[in-house]
Amino acid sequence: MICEIVCVGTEILLGDIVNTNAVYLSRKLAEMGISVLRQDVVGDNNERLTEMLRQALDRSDIVITTGGLGPTADDITRDKCCEVMDSKLVLDEKIKEQIEGYFISKGLKMSESNIRQAYVPEDGIVFENDNGTAPGFAIEKNSKCIIALPGPPREMKPMFEDKARKVLEKYSDAVFVSHNIKMMGIGESVMAEKAADLLENENPTAAPYAKDGECFLRVTASGKDKADAEEKAKPVVEEAVKRFREYVYAVDEENIETVLVKLLKKYKLKIALAESCTGGFAAKRITDISGASEVFDCGIVSYSNEIKNRILGVRKENLEKYGAVSEPVAKEMAEGVKRLSGADYGIGITGIAGPLSDSTNKPVGLSYIAVCDGETTECVEIKTSRHDRDYNRYVNGSRAFDLVRRKIIKRFEEQEEK
Amino acid sequence: MICEIVCVGTEILLGDIVNTNAVYLSRKLAEMGISVLRQDVVGDNNERLTEMLRQALDRSDIVITTGGLGPTADDITRDKCCEVMDSKLVLDEKIKEQIEGYFISKGLKMSESNIRQAYVPEDGIVFENDNGTAPGFAIEKNSKCIIALPGPPREMKPMFEDKARKVLEKYSDAVFVSHNIKMMGIGESVMAEKAADLLENENPTAAPYAKDGECFLRVTASGKDKADAEEKAKPVVEEAVKRFREYVYAVDEENIETVLVKLLKKYKLKIALAESCTGGFAAKRITDISGASEVFDCGIVSYSNEIKNRILGVRKENLEKYGAVSEPVAKEMAEGVKRLSGADYGIGITGIAGPLSDSTNKPVGLSYIAVCDGETTECVEIKTSRHDRDYNRYVNGSRAFDLVRRKIIKRFEEQEEK
Repeated sequence: MICEIVCVGTEILLGDIVNTNAVYLSRKLAEMGISVLRQDVVGDNNERLTEMLRQALDRSDIVITTGGLGPTADDITRDKCCEVMDSKLVLDEKIKEQIEGYFISKGLKMSESNIRQAYVPEDGIVFENDNGTAPGFAIEKNSKCIIALPGPPREMKPMFEDKARKVLEKYSDAVFVSHNIKMMGIGESVMAEKAADLLENENPTAAPYAKDGECFLRVTASGKDKADAEEKAKPVVEEAVKRFREYVYAVDEENIETVLVKLLKKYKLKIALAESCTGGFAAKRITDISGASEVFDCGIVSYSNEIKNRILGVRKENLEKYGAVSEPVAKEMAEGVKRLSGADYGIGITGIAGPLSDSTNKPVGLSYIAVCDGETTECVEIKTSRHDRDYNRYVNGSRAFDLVRRKIIKRFEEQEEK
Repeated sequence: MICEIVCVGTEILLGDIVNTNAVYLSRKLAEMGISVLRQDVVGDNNERLTEMLRQALDRSDIVITTGGLGPTADDITRDKCCEVMDSKLVLDEKIKEQIEGYFISKGLKMSESNIRQAYVPEDGIVFENDNGTAPGFAIEKNSKCIIALPGPPREMKPMFEDKARKVLEKYSDAVFVSHNIKMMGIGESVMAEKAADLLENENPTAAPYAKDGECFLRVTASGKDKADAEEKAKPVVEEAVKRFREYVYAVDEENIETVLVKLLKKYKLKIALAESCTGGFAAKRITDISGASEVFDCGIVSYSNEIKNRILGVRKENLEKYGAVSEPVAKEMAEGVKRLSGADYGIGITGIAGPLSDSTNKPVGLSYIAVCDGETTECVEIKTSRHDRDYNRYVNGSRAFDLVRRKIIKRFEEQEEK
């Protein structure tokens, strides 16, 4: 079954809001095995919306709209969906009462225009709106289906989950499963070459992606049910993990910080962070994860040499001789924060994030990342050659987390294997 | 002139990434007075991309594509744009050398597939990519224009600004200017009521928006040229700033942290941060700004009580008696980090970001934010009543920055006025 998503709203075309409804619906439909071949955005304009809906219905079996169900004159989706499906709008007394009730419950006065929202397609399935006033609906006719959902995500998402999903389930012909093999330390094109044979597969398919200093291989299989699809995906996922073992940090995990926090929890370990160029970004990423307090107590953002020396105990000689962005300083930062915090691993991050260099004129994108485990302190040099501050700061954190991950694997899991 | 944005990428249709390119381009084009009537997303599929490009060129004067310019086999935008515009792809030796140089500079080996990116339309304008390898281009033929930009936002945005914009300017018929009056401490609906008369204007228009614990009024004027549009916008902007003076923290500034850093630089002041629930997020936001080192030396992420006590000097009695999320602890954090760093303002942030509460069962969304200026320590309580961790962490930082901003204004600027 082929589906097309049509988001209605001039505010999207003006760039006032990000179209998060499209990404949400696309993900849900992909999981259901309904292929989304197009996403479209059109403004609150009668001719253009009608044209787009007709074209979408020609191309696709299912058309899902979001937005334009409100009470104002420019909310035209309700009317146009009915027009293209030859359905009549009729007043739904029950919905009318609910809308009135909604306004009373909020102590608001209902404007007459809100009654427009109580009109529903006579031959459609009505989706009551538990989080707002505008109901949604589905119209199914001559082997085509159109589903209209409200624009505000907090109304659209629950309506999709609790109501539209039931209607859509019968259109799902195959089930798809995707797995992402996530890697650090290898480029997309090199990875794609090494995986060339896998990329040619029909089912499962494999596709390479690059993102923020990492890259991943997505393996997608279709099957008659989830188990069947998983079975088809399994061998390719296993082969990819084996082939890229030294680079793979996770399969499907959201990101490296999630992987690291889980690993730290598993072995009841703690990390501490001493950050210079990342300026708290690494700590922020760890504490983005609910429950991070089990594995993280202490982060020091030492943005000046004086704080590096006074709080972390980085030696003045080293700061003067090698500069703040150097291996000796990164190492002393890692050792200092470990000492200060009593954590199992101390991490030191210092670099030139850009866009400009510091007084030493070291190249932008140069960073040193050190990890101290109490016995040894390891340090890696990174050269991104990018002047993108956000990118450099992000990649530094990711590489630091991956370094600790590798140390833990080495110390615990590879031992276990022996 | 009518423009259509075509974003290419199966990953968008699968819901793996949010289509932020569309919102960015739409906003820029709106400012340039170029009407975007449709945004489309299509996958990396030859037939469907060709069909969509042909339809888009029929409907619109200008078609802008993003994505699909990379080195891998599924990057087909380059070829398809040329196909629909009847242009030939030719090898650009200069681009080829740049791509080779890019890989050498990164100490990476270039794979053969990367050479594909050095092919450009023979009759097109080539946009060199200063932030990646894939060049973009524009082809103008029989009063139609197609512009191809890379998918990664950090490559696409500068290429649009520095290169594509020049090509597009000649298609712009009216000039629009927008100004955002940004406020904290007032709700959108209350603001909208107080601004009701301004919202009725035709030119400039004024519209209220709410976002992440703040709200803003956008004033948009159109004119025959920029100066004319600015002149039309000016009185309404001035009236709004006057009317909402106590809440306005900026006009057009990107965010509160940018405003604060500028203000600190102006008066040669420094802040220091002691963070609990925000876990480095506040420090990250300050150090997002290039040159933050002038105003920020030291941030302490004290995620455990022990670190709050040992590094910041928060008294054990207070932690036990009032709990970590309390006014006394927020104040001692602010005082402690000011002492430790020698900054002019110490900020303490402690709260329950959620999604779950802590052992004390205080409500999620409850936070205490303290600012110490050496003489007094002020503390505000925040109750967002939201269980959204990211939202709560963001709002805490914003409120902290706004508190310091108000203190500086009071201490320096209001004095000056007297």
